[in-house]
Formats: sequence, structure tokens, C-alpha cells
Amino acid sequence: MSRKINGIGASNGVSIAKIFKIENVEIEIDSKKIEDSEKEINILNSAIEKSVEQIEKIKMVASKTLSEEELEVFDAHIQMAKDPEMLLEVENLIKNENYNAAYAVDKVSQQLTQMFASFDDPYMRERAADIKDVSSRIIKAILNIETTDLTTIDEEVIIVADDLTPSDTAQLNKNFVKGFLTNIGGRTSHSAIMARSLEIPAILGLTNITELVSNGDIVAMNGETGMAIINPDDQEIEKFQEEYNQFLNHKKELEKFLNKVSASKDGKKVKIASNIGSVADAEGASKFNADAIGLFRSEFLYMDAENWPSEQEQFESYKAVLEKMGNKQVVVRTLDIGGDKTLKYFKFPEEMNPFLGYRAIRLSLDKKETFVTQLRALIRASAYGNLAIMFPMIATIDEFKQARAIYDQVYNQLKEEGHQVSESIEVGMMVEIPAAAVLTEQFCKYADFVSIGTNDLMQYTMAADRMSEKVSYLYQPLNPSILKLIKMTIDGAHRAGKWAGMCGEMAGDINAIPLLLGMGLDEFSMSSTSILEAKKLISEINFKDAHQLVHQALKCENQEQVQEVLNSFWENK
Amino acid sequence: MSRKINGIGASNGVSIAKIFKIENVEIEIDSKKIEDSEKEINILNSAIEKSVEQIEKIKMVASKTLSEEELEVFDAHIQMAKDPEMLLEVENLIKNENYNAAYAVDKVSQQLTQMFASFDDPYMRERAADIKDVSSRIIKAILNIETTDLTTIDEEVIIVADDLTPSDTAQLNKNFVKGFLTNIGGRTSHSAIMARSLEIPAILGLTNITELVSNGDIVAMNGETGMAIINPDDQEIEKFQEEYNQFLNHKKELEKFLNKVSASKDGKKVKIASNIGSVADAEGASKFNADAIGLFRSEFLYMDAENWPSEQEQFESYKAVLEKMGNKQVVVRTLDIGGDKTLKYFKFPEEMNPFLGYRAIRLSLDKKETFVTQLRALIRASAYGNLAIMFPMIATIDEFKQARAIYDQVYNQLKEEGHQVSESIEVGMMVEIPAAAVLTEQFCKYADFVSIGTNDLMQYTMAADRMSEKVSYLYQPLNPSILKLIKMTIDGAHRAGKWAGMCGEMAGDINAIPLLLGMGLDEFSMSSTSILEAKKLISEINFKDAHQLVHQALKCENQEQVQEVLNSFWENK
Repeated sequence: MSRKINGIGASNGVSIAKIFKIENVEIEIDSKKIEDSEKEINILNSAIEKSVEQIEKIKMVASKTLSEEELEVFDAHIQMAKDPEMLLEVENLIKNENYNAAYAVDKVSQQLTQMFASFDDPYMRERAADIKDVSSRIIKAILNIETTDLTTIDEEVIIVADDLTPSDTAQLNKNFVKGFLTNIGGRTSHSAIMARSLEIPAILGLTNITELVSNGDIVAMNGETGMAIINPDDQEIEKFQEEYNQFLNHKKELEKFLNKVSASKDGKKVKIASNIGSVADAEGASKFNADAIGLFRSEFLYMDAENWPSEQEQFESYKAVLEKMGNKQVVVRTLDIGGDKTLKYFKFPEEMNPFLGYRAIRLSLDKKETFVTQLRALIRASAYGNLAIMFPMIATIDEFKQARAIYDQVYNQLKEEGHQVSESIEVGMMVEIPAAAVLTEQFCKYADFVSIGTNDLMQYTMAADRMSEKVSYLYQPLNPSILKLIKMTIDGAHRAGKWAGMCGEMAGDINAIPLLLGMGLDEFSMSSTSILEAKKLISEINFKDAHQLVHQALKCENQEQVQEVLNSFWENK
Repeated sequence: MSRKINGIGASNGVSIAKIFKIENVEIEIDSKKIEDSEKEINILNSAIEKSVEQIEKIKMVASKTLSEEELEVFDAHIQMAKDPEMLLEVENLIKNENYNAAYAVDKVSQQLTQMFASFDDPYMRERAADIKDVSSRIIKAILNIETTDLTTIDEEVIIVADDLTPSDTAQLNKNFVKGFLTNIGGRTSHSAIMARSLEIPAILGLTNITELVSNGDIVAMNGETGMAIINPDDQEIEKFQEEYNQFLNHKKELEKFLNKVSASKDGKKVKIASNIGSVADAEGASKFNADAIGLFRSEFLYMDAENWPSEQEQFESYKAVLEKMGNKQVVVRTLDIGGDKTLKYFKFPEEMNPFLGYRAIRLSLDKKETFVTQLRALIRASAYGNLAIMFPMIATIDEFKQARAIYDQVYNQLKEEGHQVSESIEVGMMVEIPAAAVLTEQFCKYADFVSIGTNDLMQYTMAADRMSEKVSYLYQPLNPSILKLIKMTIDGAHRAGKWAGMCGEMAGDINAIPLLLGMGLDEFSMSSTSILEAKKLISEINFKDAHQLVHQALKCENQEQVQEVLNSFWENK
């Protein structure tokens, strides 16, 4: 009999295929007193060697689908496996305490895992999972236990697991893996992000899917609605097939927009741009024919590094993206670090409220030398494309003027040094702090453009950290207060004769787009996979109607009322 | 020869008097092995008895100048001195380890101090200082070392010390103590607050004043400018005397405003109200003839308690203030806890950014039973005066409506129960979150009034925690962004036919008052000691001119430009 289950639709698409279940084998590791410690150390060393080989193989397979940045996790795993200090501790346990190799690895890894798990820094805490991953691989090698090798999959399957680790997702071959279902996770978990990036349908948070299915069961799944059917009957299969065809038709429909100009039904042109976080991401922007890169987060250059990245390293990355995008504008945001984003090589001050603290432009203006290095790299790269620069977390006009003055200095210095630089770099700012939203017109005397960051703007406007469960109900993108501040920002920029973009999550939200269009937003920057959908949507709306809609929405008292206004807008369209 | 020094003027006034220096005697406590532990325990007990007597004596003297609330620190000290668990530990050290009493007390107190100092909770950390204070008193009693007794001062002096502890300031008799000078501290430190409350001139943060002066030196000091002269010559004394006379004249001048109506030169009436934090504070409001209590912080009822205060306890406090103020309105703010304000008996959730978290009305709406208890107490007390209630940290209209619905329910319930209640309680809200500021008109469909809380509003509008040193430069009350949001709030309230007050620090800031008057602020609520100064100032300004001034200020780009506009306003007046 068939069975319907519902989870969190985390990556769109419809699939029907048989199950491939990843079992979590619980390994019992006994402590044995060994006699020949020499021999045990040899076992250890060849297990490490084998593990490194496995990881290298996975990396090779994964390199066909993942970006350089995404592949770095494997280098980290290899380094962990070979780490001389960890090895020394394990060897000592074997030599001095006569423990068997598997037990010694387990003991040392548990100590390390606990240490990392106790860190305040979320980045360090995540490393605990990596250590566990690597040491369990070594232990399996010692005990000659086979590890599930996802790269060997050679028929169409839907993967079922408790959760997918980074090394699991990295091994997925999208030619055979048609979807995955997991017990845990949500729309923003690592596996969800990877699924969308690989364009594999996924349903997460199914609680006990690993218990509900066996290998060989057939599953039909819809990654948009979050619904799956285990062992569907013919009728259900037919219905799913229909849904699948609809999905394919919709995709084909969207593809028609690839080369169309982005504009409303009544001809108001807008830009639909991409948010990217790495050089590899520019591929997606290109694939979906984004009108521009509206936000290139430069943080990854810093967060993945072992030390402040050099001017040359940064230059290469910026140049690569600019060249890739040709004439299209690439807006690079200068270092937006602090808050919950930390660096391995820099100690942030201890603050009671890091979100209200030392971060982004505040740090750049304080640590001028790193700011200058980044600006030098950016301006040098400007010769290779259409560069724009924006500063994050600007709260006062003085801050913007300070940052811009440093920019001007660096620019002139580079010209004096004989570097080729673009003559038309736009220098703008993020509007993500209420102080900037209410005064945008004055800011735009100095800024060439503004780009609205909705997540932070919402957070400060509502005085609510959306990571805090108790106040997450205040995360209300359609609240009239938020809409009003967004409108003030756009109006302010236009009054000053400048353009206004948005690179927050809201810009790609189908629900919010009519309002943003109606407010006159010039550039919508979103994840590349949302571009065609947004383009299609905008082409179906009259700007005039959307403008009227804004008027109604701003008279509302809460998000629900705005939603009703939106609903009747769609109904009457 | 005379010597000029400059520190932080922390409490206004001019004095010339001789120095009374509080020396910090470093006591060496040796560990001795004693033979008669019985005898040592007797020494201990009589030292404790002597200490408790001393504290009680200080409390008695202090009760002439301090409020009930301020006196509570002494009860806490007495309890600590007599604490049976601490005593038991000390006795064990004497009996089992044969330590001398002084050493045993020191050892136990050090352990306790360390424990308290390691707490995350600032309230608990402060208790470390109290334990140190009490145990050092006991040790001195054991060793027969005289403690400086400030109550014995019987001639006019200026006190010089490294810092003043709560028990020091509590002993100050303002008939003899004409001022104090300390090495450390700033305008918001405990001793500064006490100095202003006792109206004793004070200069803090002088770094090494204890080394610069000896007992018997003469000092002339001006607590407004922060300047002091050690051993001034005749000319300097004359100049100071002149300043002193000016100060007295100014005071007399201000007293003329006691019974005048608060209004601008051209007759626009406003209310000048008091912010109070306890029942005792209502005394000051009364003394300076405040037009109302614009903010009664109800937190103290909760923060000083050992458990959630009962309806009856709260009722008594609210009733006392209402009766004291007669017909004048008393605006009580419901519990504003969380962020940096914690409770001994309630565990707040661990949050990464407590200022953006679970606090104030968010907690009240979540823990409805405590909210209902407070509302019951308030509404019952309404029969005894002119009560208004306001909710803190309102971000959305839904929150306000929810809170008001609970209020309505409680109100009707109390009437049904046969309680006497006022028929004209105004129910309003704090505007301290940007979301509320931009939408005040809509909020005022439901709120009877708004009161602007400038500290939090500034913090969220600038996205800067002013306690974080690295971003404290963003604390800019005169920044045009802040002024614009304040104006939006006042305009919004007026458009809805409601009144707008301000109970943040800015309302009592001489510098900001012309702008606030010009924006049409209806009620300025400040610390009672600022009332007359504000009243005088407002009486000297034309509302029309102030209105014009706002127009100019809002065109400025930064706080400095606003200050220039203000300066030329004063020059041309």
C-alpha cells in the first residue's frame, strides 16, 4: 500500500525512483590491551593512508560538480587525517597504554570533538563534525568496515538518510541521484543549500523516513510541495508524472525568458541580478543570464583563508568574476565580517551584542590597512570589466565620506603607480541600518547608488535577532514598517538622481516582487536560480498596477493585511 | 604654589574647603597556626557583631539622606556579615586547620569573591564588591584596625579618594561634605549618580588626585567644568567665590520657575515631567514641582525582589506614587526587563544578542500571568490618582493590540470583582524601536499616547550598542537620522490626535530641547533635578523660531552640522 508523507520542500523538482538508503552503522569500539604496539601503529598508518585515498577519490569525483570553494572541505579533511599532533597522541596511547588503534583514535577524536563543540564560535563548533567524520572514516578503515560509496551509484535513485554530511553531498552525481529525503534539516541547512545548487529535488525534516522505507522501495517526491509517496500506486504515479511534466513545462517556459529584456508588462525596465559568494558562483549568474552581479560577497576570500588575503590573491578573484561577466556590472561588497561571521586569524572584541557591534565598515575604517589592501585589489581589477564597489553597514554620512575618501586616495595612488584602472567605477553603499534608510537622499549626495539589505534592515528596524527563537515572530518582511523604510530608501535615492537596488532575500521573493516593482526598485539581486522566475513574474505585472498596490499596502497595519492586499492583487490580475 | 587639574565634572556646584583624604590601607594578613580555636572563634564572633553594629550605625546616619531603596544595600551587607554558611566555613578552617580568624575570613571571602566575579550576570558580579567590602570590615574588626568613619566628619571638607564605595557615599553628610574628588569613575558611575542625587559637587576621573594632595590642603572645585585648584592663591579663591556666587544666583534664578507654567516665550504650553525609578524618587518630582511623572520605571519592584512581586506589593508602591502626585498624571511603564537587566529568580534564554531579544513587552506577552498581575496592581491603584500605563519595546501594531486586549480584560474583570478603578486611564506605548517610529500614526489608532525612548531608539537606528567601546562613536543624539525619526513619531501622533512625550535622556538635554520644542513635543520627561533648568530654557525660546530651527537641522548631514545650527540659533536669540 502506498503512504503519503510530508516534509520541508527544500529544493524544487519532481522525481520517481527507487530508494538508496544510507545506513548509519553504529560501530562498537572495544578497548583491548595489545601486545605488539609496533604492529598496531602500522595498522593505524595504513588506515590513515587508505582514508586519505578515499577522500582524494571523492574529491576528484566531486570536482566535476562542485566549485573550488566547495571542494576545500576535502583538503581540510585530508589535513585532519594526517595531522601530526593528533597522530602523536594516538601513537602515545598505543605505545604507553597498549590500547588498540581503533580505540586510541576514538579516544583522541572524542577529546578533540568535545573541545571544538564547546567553543563559542559557530565556525569552530562545526569543525567538531568534521573531526568526527574523518576519525570515523579512519576507524572504519582499521576495522575493515566498508563505507557507503555514493560515487559508485550507477542507476537512478532517490537517497534516503538521517542527514547528509558535506562529504555525502559532494559525492552526489546528479545524473543518477534524482532526489534526496532526510529525517532532519530545513530550508537553510547545508544539505538544502547544496541540493538547490546541484538542482536536485529534496525534502528534508521528514523525521523518520529512514525507518519508513527499505532499499528497493519506490518513492515519488515533489521537492516544491514537500510531499512524497512511498510505493505509489499506478494512479499516484500518473499524477506525479503529470506534476513532473508540469514542472518540466514550467522550466521550459522559464527558459524562454533567458534572453528577454527584464521589464514589466507595461514596459518599465528593471535589472534582475545575481547574488554570488564566490568566483565559482559567477557560473550560475552566467547560465541564467543575469543582468548584473548585484552583490558579490567578498567575505569568502577572508573566511576561508588562514590569514588576511593578500592584494594579489584578492585581485585574481575579482578579476576572474569581472572577466566572466564582461560588460555587465559587478557590485563587490567590501568585507562584511563580524556579528556571527568570524575569522580564524583575527580576534574580535568581546561584545554583549555583536550584531550591534564592531563589524563590516566599522572594522574596515578602524583597520585601515586591510581596507586599503582590498580597495587596491578591487581597483586594479576594475580594468577587466564593469566594477562597482559598495560599503556594508553604513550608519552615518561621515562614515561613507570617510570610506569614499580612502577609496579616492587609493584610486589616485594606483594611477600614479601606472596601473590600468577603469574610469567609471560606481561607489555605493548598503542600506541595512535604519539611520541610512531614513536619510538616503542626503547619503546619495556622496553615494553613486544604494543597495538594500533586507535581513539586517529588518533585524534593526524590529530590534529582533531572528536567530533568537523567542522573537523570531518579528521576522516580518511584509510588515508595513519595513515596506515604508524600503520605500523611503528608494524614493530618497531617486530624488538624488541615483539608482536603488536590493540584494537581500526579499528581492527574490515572488511574494514581495510586485511591491518592490511598484516602489520603483531599479535592480533586484537574488540567487541565480530565482532569476528566470522573477523575470517571468515581472513581465506579467503592470508597473502602474504595482504602484497602486504599494499605496494600499502602506495603509495596512500588519503583515497579514498586506498579504491580503497582495492576494486580491493576484486574483484581479 | 597652586596647581590646576581637570577631571570629569560629574555633579554641578562650586566649593572651596580643606581636604579629607580616605586612605586605602593595605592590610597584610598572615597565616598563623593558632592553638586555642575556641578563643579564635570568639574573636571572630565579636568582630562580626562589631561590624554589624557599624553597618547599622551607617545606615541610621544615611537614612536621613537616602531613599528606602538606596538603604537596602546595608541590609544586604548585614545579611552577608551574618551569613551562617560563610560563618560555618570560616569556623571549620579555624577548628580543623588551626588558622587564625583573620586569615580564615580572608580565605573564604576570596573564594566567594572569585566565584561571584566569574558570573556572567552583571548583578552577581557586582556582589563580589559587596562581599569584599563586608569581609574587609570584619577583618579590620578582628585586627582592631580603625575604619575611616565618614559620619564623624564635623567640619566642611572636600573628600578625596581613589573611588567611593556605596557605604562611603551613604555616610556623606551634605552639611559638612562640600564635594568630592576621585581618581576613577565617570558621569554614569555609582558615585556620580549619588553625588547628583545628594546635590554635592563632584569631579571624578582625576587619575592621581590621591597622590597630589595631602590632608589639610585646600581645594577649590567646580563640579560643572570639572576643574579644581589645589591650594589656590587669593586671586584664584576670589574667582572661584565669584563662580560660586554665580552658581548660587543661578540656583535662585531657577527657583523662580518653580511655580510658573511650563511654556515657551510665545506661549506654547508644554509639560515638564519627571522620570522616577522608585517610590522615594517621587519626592524629587514633588520638590521640583514636576507637571507629571512621565516615566515610572516599574523594574525596581522586580529587580530588588527575591521573587516575582505580588499584586499587593506592587499595588502599594503604585498607590504611594499616585497619592503623592495627586491630580498630576503618573505614567507607569510595565516591566522592562531583559537585555542587560536581569532578575535573580528568572532564567532568561541564552541569546547571542540580548538587546535584540527576549525583553520587555515580548516577555510580558509570553509570560502572561506576570503581566496580568502587574496590570491588576496598576488598575487597582488607579483609584488613587491619575494613572497612565505604557508598554515598552512595542515593535508591531499586533503586539500593542494584544497587550491592550489583556489590559481591557483585566480592567473589566476588576470592575466585575467590585474594585474601584479610574474611568480615564490612558494606555500608551514607548516608541524606542524604529518600526514603531515610522508607523506612529497607525499605532495611535490604538494607543492613547506615545513616549519616545531615545537611548534604545538611537541604539537600534544606528545598529550600535553604545556599551561597545568600538562603536560608541555612533551614539549621536543630534544625528539628523535620529532627529528625523523623532519628528516622524511626533507628527504621526499628532496626525492621529494623540500626544507625544519623551522620557529618554535627550528630553532633559539643554542642547536638544529647542529642537524637541520645535518639533512640537508635548511632554519632556527628565530627572527631577533638570526640571527647572529646562523650564527656564523653554521660557526663553519662541516656539516659532524653534520650529524654523528644526527645518534647518533636518537638512544637515551630521551631528556637527546640527550643533552649528544650534550654536547660531543661540547666538541670534
